[in-house]
Parts: sequence; C-alpha cells; structure tokens
Amino acid sequence: MSNALAPVKGFVRNAWYAAAVSGEIGRNLFSRRILDEPVLMYRKQDGMPVALLNRCPHKLAPLSLGTLVDDVVQCRYHGLQFDGAGACVRVPGQENIPRSARVRSFPVTERYGLLWVWMGEPSLADPTRIVAVERYGTPGWAVIEGHYQHHGSSYVNIAENLMDPAHTTFVHEKTIGNPAASEVAVQVEEGTDYVLAYRWVNNVPPPPIDRKLGGFSGLVDRCQYYYFFPPAVSRVDVVTMEAGREHSEENKDRGVRAFSYKFLTPETQNRTHFFWLHVRNFRVGEPEAAEELARSMGATFEEDNALYSAVQLEQEATGHVQYTGLLIDRAPALIRRKIKSMIEKEQTCLKAS
Amino acid sequence: MSNALAPVKGFVRNAWYAAAVSGEIGRNLFSRRILDEPVLMYRKQDGMPVALLNRCPHKLAPLSLGTLVDDVVQCRYHGLQFDGAGACVRVPGQENIPRSARVRSFPVTERYGLLWVWMGEPSLADPTRIVAVERYGTPGWAVIEGHYQHHGSSYVNIAENLMDPAHTTFVHEKTIGNPAASEVAVQVEEGTDYVLAYRWVNNVPPPPIDRKLGGFSGLVDRCQYYYFFPPAVSRVDVVTMEAGREHSEENKDRGVRAFSYKFLTPETQNRTHFFWLHVRNFRVGEPEAAEELARSMGATFEEDNALYSAVQLEQEATGHVQYTGLLIDRAPALIRRKIKSMIEKEQTCLKAS
Amino acid sequence: MSNALAPVKGFVRNAWYAAAVSGEIGRNLFSRRILDEPVLMYRKQDGMPVALLNRCPHKLAPLSLGTLVDDVVQCRYHGLQFDGAGACVRVPGQENIPRSARVRSFPVTERYGLLWVWMGEPSLADPTRIVAVERYGTPGWAVIEGHYQHHGSSYVNIAENLMDPAHTTFVHEKTIGNPAASEVAVQVEEGTDYVLAYRWVNNVPPPPIDRKLGGFSGLVDRCQYYYFFPPAVSRVDVVTMEAGREHSEENKDRGVRAFSYKFLTPETQNRTHFFWLHVRNFRVGEPEAAEELARSMGATFEEDNALYSAVQLEQEATGHVQYTGLLIDRAPALIRRKIKSMIEKEQTCLKAS
Repeated sequence: MSNALAPVKGFVRNAWYAAAVSGEIGRNLFSRRILDEPVLMYRKQDGMPVALLNRCPHKLAPLSLGTLVDDVVQCRYHGLQFDGAGACVRVPGQENIPRSARVRSFPVTERYGLLWVWMGEPSLADPTRIVAVERYGTPGWAVIEGHYQHHGSSYVNIAENLMDPAHTTFVHEKTIGNPAASEVAVQVEEGTDYVLAYRWVNNVPPPPIDRKLGGFSGLVDRCQYYYFFPPAVSRVDVVTMEAGREHSEENKDRGVRAFSYKFLTPETQNRTHFFWLHVRNFRVGEPEAAEELARSMGATFEEDNALYSAVQLEQEATGHVQYTGLLIDRAPALIRRKIKSMIEKEQTCLKAS
Repeated sequence: MSNALAPVKGFVRNAWYAAAVSGEIGRNLFSRRILDEPVLMYRKQDGMPVALLNRCPHKLAPLSLGTLVDDVVQCRYHGLQFDGAGACVRVPGQENIPRSARVRSFPVTERYGLLWVWMGEPSLADPTRIVAVERYGTPGWAVIEGHYQHHGSSYVNIAENLMDPAHTTFVHEKTIGNPAASEVAVQVEEGTDYVLAYRWVNNVPPPPIDRKLGGFSGLVDRCQYYYFFPPAVSRVDVVTMEAGREHSEENKDRGVRAFSYKFLTPETQNRTHFFWLHVRNFRVGEPEAAEELARSMGATFEEDNALYSAVQLEQEATGHVQYTGLLIDRAPALIRRKIKSMIEKEQTCLKAS
Repeated sequence: MSNALAPVKGFVRNAWYAAAVSGEIGRNLFSRRILDEPVLMYRKQDGMPVALLNRCPHKLAPLSLGTLVDDVVQCRYHGLQFDGAGACVRVPGQENIPRSARVRSFPVTERYGLLWVWMGEPSLADPTRIVAVERYGTPGWAVIEGHYQHHGSSYVNIAENLMDPAHTTFVHEKTIGNPAASEVAVQVEEGTDYVLAYRWVNNVPPPPIDRKLGGFSGLVDRCQYYYFFPPAVSRVDVVTMEAGREHSEENKDRGVRAFSYKFLTPETQNRTHFFWLHVRNFRVGEPEAAEELARSMGATFEEDNALYSAVQLEQEATGHVQYTGLLIDRAPALIRRKIKSMIEKEQTCLKAS
C-alpha cells in the first residue's frame, strides 16, 4: 500500500542499555545478545562487572564456554586469557602476544539493581546519563527490583506500545483493562529527549482499590504520565490524590503513587530484552503485596508480549508496520520518529568522522 | 540438466477454492493461510460466513486474536471493529473513521458442506462457477461429507498425482495398489476447462468386492474416469456395470459407482490444504461402511502425501520438478501446462487493465 | 576486520570419502548426504555395495523411499527400476526406456570395515588411493572398528582441530587434558600429500598408565605424530618406548603404540560425518579394554564436537573463521591452505577441460 510505514532499521548505539539484573551476573560466564552482538558478562573478584564481546579473536570460540581464572576469562579452545578490559594477557605456547589478540570490551556499570552496558563509542559512556529512577532508595518508598522478560517483538513496537494507553482496554481486557479509560484522550508533549502522554481525571470518586490504599474520604484527582526517553526507557507515573489540591510533586507524593519503569534492550532488530522495576509509596514493607504486584505486572507485560509478538510476525511477513494512522498514534508516532532520527544522526556522525 | 522442468510459480486467483469444512467455522475466529494470504473466517449471527484478510490495517495485528462482537470482529490491539464486508465501523477514541481503515474481504459461499472463497477479482465471483458435485443429495446416493488434510507439497504436484493412476501400484502397494492395473494404459482427452484420463476394462469377471456390492452374476465392464478441472478440482468416477450394456450414465448408475472429489487449496506455493468428499450408490444408509471408507480413503491420501512431500523437498532443493518425461506423464503434463497458462493469462490481464 | 580469514568454500571431489560403517549398509535402502548430495547406498545380493544419487530422474522422488527388487532399486512413485550402475532397467507402462532415465552412480568400495565413496570424476577412482591403515589386520594388533559421529562443524575446522594438539589441555581438561603438554611445542613438516606435526619427549619416567601397559622399568621416550592427508584423513601415531633405543618403526612397535584414524566426510559445507577407528598393540584380545577405549574416545571426540560446533555458529554469523594468528596455528594453517589449493586446482581443471 502506498502510505504503508516501513520498520525502523538499526539501533541507537550511544546509550545505556539494561544488560542484566544484578543477580544474574556473578562468578560465572553469562552471555546475552545485545544490539545483535554476543556480550559476555561476569564479575571480577571484587564484584566489579565486566562486559566483553563473547568471541575469541583467534578462532571465534564463544568465550562463555571457557572458565574464569581469577579476574580473567580463559578461552575453552586454546587457553587464551583476556582481562576485563579485553586485553590478552596469556597465549599458551608463545611469549609475545599478538596485537590483534584483543577482545572488544564495553563500558558497564551497575545501578538500580541492574547492569547497564554501553554498546557505542566508549569515550561517550558517561554513567550520569543513566536514567534517574524516581524515589529509588527514598524512605517511605518500596521498590520491586528489576525483573527480566524476553519479548518477541522489535523494541520500537514495544516503545510505541508503552506510549499507547489506548491498548489497555483491549489487550488487558481480562486483567487491568477498563472500557471507560479508552474514552479519555491523552495530552501529548514532546521534549528534546522525551515524549510524554498524560491525562488527568479530576473530582471523581476514588475507585475501591485507591480508597483502600489511600484512605480517601472524598473526591480524588487521578493522573497517568507516560514518559518515554528514547531509545530505551519508559517511565509511567500514576497518582491518585485528594481533589482540589495543587498538582505539585509534593502533593502527588502524599497520594497513592507509583513509578513503573521499563528498560528495552534490543536483542536483535526484532526481539527485545524487557526489564522492568517498580517504585511505590503504598503497602510499603509488605512483602506479600510486592509479590502480588510483581506477579500481576509480569502477567500483564506478557499479555502485551503475546500481542505484539503476533504483530511482529505480520510486520516481518509484509515488510510494513502500519497502514492506517489514528488519533491515538500521536505519542507512539513521535517516539518512532525520535528513535529513527537518533539512529540517522548517529550514522551521519559516524560517516563524517 | 538442460531439459529439467521448473516448478509452476504463482496461483490462479479467479477461482473458487475450498476454504474450510462447514463445521470448522462458527462463532469463533478461525484463520487459515490461502494463496499465501492470512484469511480470517467466522459466521455472523444468522449463520452467514465471512472471510476477511486476517490483518488489522492499523498496526497489522492478526484479527483472529480479537473477539466477535455481534457480527463484527474487534481487534485485540486497539479495539477497531470491522464488519463482514471489511468496513471499519468503530475506532475507539475518535469519531471519524479514516478511509484507509478497511480490511479486504473475500467473497465466500457455502455449498456441499464446504466454505468456498474467491481470492481474485470480487466482481467475477459467480457462485454458479463452483464445481457441480455429481449425485450430491440425490436419493439412493450416500455422501461422505468434506474431510480436511494438510499436504506438504505444491498443489501442482498434487494435481499431477491425481491425474496419474500409474502411481497407484507403487505408492499404495500396501493398500489399494494392484500390480495388474499398471499395465492398462489410460486414454487422455483435453477440454477447454478440463483434462480427462480414463480406461475401460470390459468383459471381465467382477472382483470379489464388486461381486459383493453389486451382486453381479456374469461378466462386467469396469471404468475409471479421472477428471481435473484446473486449478483445483479433481473428480474420479469409478464404475463396475454388467457387461454388454451401453455405457450410458443411466446404466452406469445401475452398476456400482462412486464419485471421489478432491479440492486443492494452495496454502503457500509449496503446501496445500487438501479437502475431499465422496458420493456412492452402494452400502447407502450404512454408517459403519461410510466410516470404514472414510478411514481407508484418508489413509490412502496420506500415503500420497508422504510420497509427494518428500518429492517436494527434493524439488525445492534442486529448483526442478522433473528431469525425464514418460508416457504416463501425458495427463499430468497437460494439467501442469493448463494451470501455468491460466496463471499467465490472469497476469497478462492484470497488467493490461 | 582487515586480516580476518574467510572460510574455505567447496569440496575436494576427487577423493575417497568414508560413506558408512560396513554394518550400516545391507539389504535396506540407506541414505546419507555427502558433499551436499543425497547418496543412496545398499548391497546387492552378492554383498557388493552400491552408491547412487538418491533422486529419481522422473519426478525427483528420493529412491530411498522405494524398495529393493533383487539387485535393483524400484522407485516408490512410479516403479521405475535402476540397477547398481544407475541404468534404468524398467519403466512400467512403456517398452522403451528414455535415455535421460538414468541415475548418477558413484564408485564405491569396501575396506577397513568402511564403505568408501568417490564423488568426483569416476575414471579417477582408483581404490589403491584409499589411505593405508597401519597394522590393520596384523597379528599382535587389535582394532576398534569404524565408529560414526555427526559433527556440527565444517570439515576444515575439524581438520585444523586434528592438527592442533594445543587444544587438548583446554577442550579436554576433564578427560585427557594435561596442562604440562601445552608447553611442549610441536615440530611441523609439510609433504606433497600430507602435513605432519609431532613431538618427542625423551628420557622421562613413564606415566602410570604406560608403566602398566608396557611394563617399563626405566626411563622412556614418548612421541605423538599428527598426520593429516588432505582432504579427509587424520592419523595420530602415539608411542611410549624404552629410552635410549633408536626411534625405528620396529622399536616403536615394541613399545606401547596406537594409531588413531579419523575420516572426515563433509555432509554439507558446515556439517561433517566423522568416522574413526583405532589400532593398538596393547591389551590385545581384551574386549572390555576395547569397549572402555571406544567409550572414552567417543566421549573425547564429542568434547571437540561441542566446542567447534559453537565455533562454527560464530563463524557462520560473522562470515569469518579467524582474526588472530598464533604460533600454534602453523600446522592447522598449512592444512587449511592445502585443502583450499586442492579445491582451486580441481576447479581450474574442471574449467580447462
């Protein structure tokens, strides 16, 4: 069809991507494909994480088949040893080490219970560019630490889905869906490094769940803020607060509030590592509440996964991602365009340099 | 090899294809790939069947993941609703419906216990062009209604197989094969819309099975007529009748007679939906006979399937379908050429229009 | 990378390849893909083996689906019969046999408990060119007859591995690996039709196993000779003998000695049929020793297989086989180059002829 949209090709390389949940990585050799490259991760004896290309430069054996010897990884094939920076420190059978015997290493850092990897130009890997997780570690706030799922769809489809509250009524019909919700339009706002879709519903009776969690006696104002920081971070901020008060951050924090984060890490062009974590100011210190929340959020994200994995296969079969544009597409379309232009800009810089 | 035959590419689009057994389609959403397109089928509340492209024009979600709301299908992703003609009748969140929000619908009709779909130009979809099934519904004749198998081969290979009685001795060696049969050559006749291969064996003693079914006391004449109506319909007409009588339709009907139909519906270029049904004038009103016949015919067709599925893989690996021509290939070769020329004619018309 | 090595493409066709263990082939139809062609094998009534292309020239049915009728194979589809030389001897339904109805046959011969097939120019198939297996059938020597494994890697990777004792310490760490061994460099020698890597360790105390097998009281000399006869044969000759004696074949035979053969038969470019057999002068006439040896050698070769199958996948993903050259690569690199030049020479001859 003439106005069919083509998929976004490629990746933003200069960005921090969630690579693993902290607990996944230890004194074992762990591999995961990230931006279509095999990445080996492990921890040094002091606990510092390492990320290397999972491929010996000699015969291309996956280093993850090898063994950890102190802080270096030893290839299973001929025993070459590489340190955490990718330098070869031993070649059995010869004294001098060839200059080409070197493995690409990736900047890696740990924060919020996750390992973050930088697959682009290493000199640009500034850890302060990792997204700030709101209220993480703040007293009075509880955290559901990072969880991992594997999703069968392009990170771009997932990003669009996360900026698209309209799907909730239908995809999550049996869980969190709410037919009424689909009738309230979202406001959309674009910043240099984010897209935001949000809505307020003011002066309404609190729903039973909020009544129970927040002890509200009168009317409430409710909001959802869907932020996406391309290429990879979604933050959803949900608040129920007493009606009539100023919508300040302070007042929001006095209501029932949660921040839900998702970190999208492309495995390949069409498959995605999906990490999420959750911060809330209600039912703090109740592990069974955390368990129940984690279980139900995990199930909800799998509903999305089932849907957009099927979409993905149709998109792969046709080479298109969309035929018809709708009003609800505004935020998703902004995200797709922002990701696309970030990729194009990176590739232009690469060519220029 | 220089005289190797290449496979026939493409499909005849302007034809009725068996799409489903009537009982497969109801108030559920059923999808089947036909001519390499995903087709969604369901019945409206009045029982009328619907066939739509199984792909929402918004983000390409398979509509079969959605739900039936009265007579319309609602997409699982954003709740768009399409009626049985493919028109979008609702977009949640907006009043006006974009002109491009439309799903392709296919003419579909029900006959002989099967749903028939027309994947080509809708204005040409004349239901009278559906093949007439002989004796179907005629008193004194019993029907084994439509059965479905999935076959691992191109419809062209299957069509050739159905015009090729010479394979019976070898492929069906353990079931219906008969070494003697292979020695009697078939006559071949070509019409504008059919190919026919047939043989008569006259003045022979009846085989035990025909003796039992027909109560013959003397010699018999026996015939098999293999018709193929390209691109998709095979009719085999088998008769054992008293010797010496005129070979009229009336006299044939007085003998032991069966019409065996196969309807080939390409799933893809190389895989086929295989429907069959059977009409007979013997052991009428004996359900156990019908069961036994259906079971043994089903098993026979799976013998063919096993054989030509293996052939298919060799043909795919080599890019050829045949190296050596034989006398027994006359009818199969006519069928292949007829299908090929129908495809070419359609494509020429398409370009001209 | 600029100095990345590309994989060797193609096969040496004019060579004898192990096609099957003798016991695999009998009065059944057996098929195996060799040099990426489907090969049918069976034995005639007198026990002589036959190797034919497993593809009927009529519609390309795999002949292995058919049946053996005396010494000819009968196609399952239309009953065409082919003799052991590939000539068609019967076409049901016609008297004359088309000239094109012929199946390619391959020279095949039996030796050392294996069937050997020649996939190249038949006139060059001289059985004396089959490798001579040392001591096979000599009194005082025991044979572990041919065993078969399927390996997930290119025959070139396997050939390199077999000329590369340096991998033993690491790949076989838990079985036959020996950290000390990796420190003794091999000598490399190149002949017109072989590459040899070998090492002697002289005047050392015998290891316990050799002490037990050879009854040595004093110091010993030990050697390993790794021969590869491209494209397909590896012979490893391992000796422990009394120190101070001349290193003659006679004296070696008086020590503890074994010849280990591997025969590599490409299934496709990237997968290999791996045959091995073993000849020894110790624990002769002890079937339980043979069983134990066979089991442990089989397990060792599967360790190699696991490693280079993973290497193969990385090589396929990158299109390269090596980035960095090491000293230990000398013999493997010679083998790779020799195979490559044999293929190029054959292809040049083919074009010239």
